[in-house]
Amino acid sequence: MEIEEFINKSEGEWNSMRSGHSLAFKQFEEIVSHIKITKLKQDDSQVQYYLNKSQYSQRTPTCPFKIEWEGISDWSDKDDFKGSSLLIPIQNKSNSGMILKSLGYAEKIESISNYHFLSDCTLILSTEYEETVAEERIWFINSNLRCRSSVIKSLKNKSILQTSFASELRKIF
Amino acid sequence: MEIEEFINKSEGEWNSMRSGHSLAFKQFEEIVSHIKITKLKQDDSQVQYYLNKSQYSQRTPTCPFKIEWEGISDWSDKDDFKGSSLLIPIQNKSNSGMILKSLGYAEKIESISNYHFLSDCTLILSTEYEETVAEERIWFINSNLRCRSSVIKSLKNKSILQTSFASELRKIF
Repeated sequence: MEIEEFINKSEGEWNSMRSGHSLAFKQFEEIVSHIKITKLKQDDSQVQYYLNKSQYSQRTPTCPFKIEWEGISDWSDKDDFKGSSLLIPIQNKSNSGMILKSLGYAEKIESISNYHFLSDCTLILSTEYEETVAEERIWFINSNLRCRSSVIKSLKNKSILQTSFASELRKIF
Repeated sequence: MEIEEFINKSEGEWNSMRSGHSLAFKQFEEIVSHIKITKLKQDDSQVQYYLNKSQYSQRTPTCPFKIEWEGISDWSDKDDFKGSSLLIPIQNKSNSGMILKSLGYAEKIESISNYHFLSDCTLILSTEYEETVAEERIWFINSNLRCRSSVIKSLKNKSILQTSFASELRKIF
């Protein structure tokens, strides 16, 4: 599997159910959200902006894309949450490379993830943030169902802070 | 990874948080349970009983074991649920084979799962029941945290019935 094929399969709109597990407190979080994944052109001005200010300004991105989300969490004191992030993959080998993100997953800051694919085409993303390390894995059950799990650890002592799992069903109608 | 090493890592007691996602109804289920995994001898009478009545009675099992669970679901009308299952792996290649189960996961009947390991040692289990097909994947984050996801499909039309995810933390004290 190469990153471009994975992004092609991911493009579109998805209804997501996500569960967060806070292991220390045995607390569940439930999040329902709507996700939209849109491919962008390599010469898109925002793609060029983030690429040029990164250490990879001389590299050619593969299939940059945008993720937008809007949802409701049973933990949030606000009614809903929404946001978007720009993702710029830079391929090293056919099945691995980096992804620049304008907004990270575990911490809402610019970040760089390393990615690679397992033998069954599961995408593994590893991201070091300022205080945490996140490992995400994303795999397709069929063309209309994506599963996504994550583990967030403390950067300092590698203790587990949270796990999560999302079932993402393609929005057809 | 071979099945024996995986079972050695799994042996012990675990506190599990599990979330079920019913995609059609956007409903979450939350289950908290305690799991105990115990290795059994090859000549254990129950292991021999299930092996002998299977089509694999001439094969030698690798590292048979028992799983016991007890827990509480927010969907259950009973206060708690408990049960146990005997699992008898029969290795074909170094990283794949079958597992006979006295009690299945998606349906509580005797079943046979095919298993194999991905390149990162994730265990994949596929089981065909009377009305459903289940794919489970189990992977270790570290020696004290196991993650487990499942997807249950209808056998007839392959529609997705439920996904689930469990975070299993080793019980140390």
